[in-house]
Amino acid sequence: MLFLLSGPSGVGKGTVRKALFKKEPHKLLYSISATTRKPRRGEVDGRDYFFTTKSKFEEMINAGQMLEYAQYVDNYYGTPKNWIDDQREQGNDVFMEIEVNGAMQVRAKVPDAILIFLLPPDLMQLRNRLELRGTESDEVIDERLKTARQEILMMTNYDYAVVNDKVDRAVKKVQTIIDAERLKAKRLANGYMKILEV
Amino acid sequence: MLFLLSGPSGVGKGTVRKALFKKEPHKLLYSISATTRKPRRGEVDGRDYFFTTKSKFEEMINAGQMLEYAQYVDNYYGTPKNWIDDQREQGNDVFMEIEVNGAMQVRAKVPDAILIFLLPPDLMQLRNRLELRGTESDEVIDERLKTARQEILMMTNYDYAVVNDKVDRAVKKVQTIIDAERLKAKRLANGYMKILEV
Repeated sequence: MLFLLSGPSGVGKGTVRKALFKKEPHKLLYSISATTRKPRRGEVDGRDYFFTTKSKFEEMINAGQMLEYAQYVDNYYGTPKNWIDDQREQGNDVFMEIEVNGAMQVRAKVPDAILIFLLPPDLMQLRNRLELRGTESDEVIDERLKTARQEILMMTNYDYAVVNDKVDRAVKKVQTIIDAERLKAKRLANGYMKILEV
Repeated sequence: MLFLLSGPSGVGKGTVRKALFKKEPHKLLYSISATTRKPRRGEVDGRDYFFTTKSKFEEMINAGQMLEYAQYVDNYYGTPKNWIDDQREQGNDVFMEIEVNGAMQVRAKVPDAILIFLLPPDLMQLRNRLELRGTESDEVIDERLKTARQEILMMTNYDYAVVNDKVDRAVKKVQTIIDAERLKAKRLANGYMKILEV
């Protein structure tokens, strides 16, 4: 299986992902991105990123070897397809932490990927937006509502949504989603069928 | 939401359902069946069953008011549609414990119902079937494999599958499935949309 944790920038995807991977047994492999930017102090090739050159990265894009990619400030970031395919063929579950645009690229290429949307907690506060009218200007409220609408529309492209109100709580929900996906009848039936054909 | 717990007869659906309902907070309403059989000592109308007459039951079938039904030894058993529709409209999640045939009837009428298949633990023992060859006759092994194939085929009509090896463990898995379904992005997005339209 391929799990994606995504959401608006600044929502805390990295924090939730790191906390999830500290808990055992999650039985997940973290998908390492490739990048053309220089390693920073302490970063290790093959652990933090696969560091590569611009020309090699562009070669991989042209050869269709990138599951998703993006360019930020003259550097490429992306996910090499081969590594993920290899892991899934070996029966391993892969976990990606990824920006919204990248998640949509993966969804198009891997229809059975499981997409989890991490929501900012202030979306919940919209319940009280009428109460906010006393303390906030109409412009601020309108801006918040506009952002909220965009985030909710974004969310409908995902399978699951988790509010990041507290990291522990968000991690527990992500783990619940992973556990439930492992109980999907079609996946289990395939496994049993293989045993019976032995 | 409408959750169905189903599976081959004798697998322990009732035991798992009762243990699930003892745990709080499950936030589920148990769907009570209607029947034409006489109440047994201690059974209460509206708690254990809705007791009714054969003619009334047949009237409800003809009026399309039965979500599913079956006839055993001259008595009808079934699920009245109205009660479930009412509960779901009020935002309540309903839980049914039901035979395989009934589950398939519900699946056809309620496409968004969530179907959980309870599996007997001996299906797992098939992993060791080659080892069994020493102790069991070929006929016994063939019979077991035939049953197992049927159960696995049945299972592919369900959303989730849970092995009933230990009741506590099975209950925990059913609860995980319910929790994860409550994190489905489309359901949450609908809820948020309603808040924004206020």
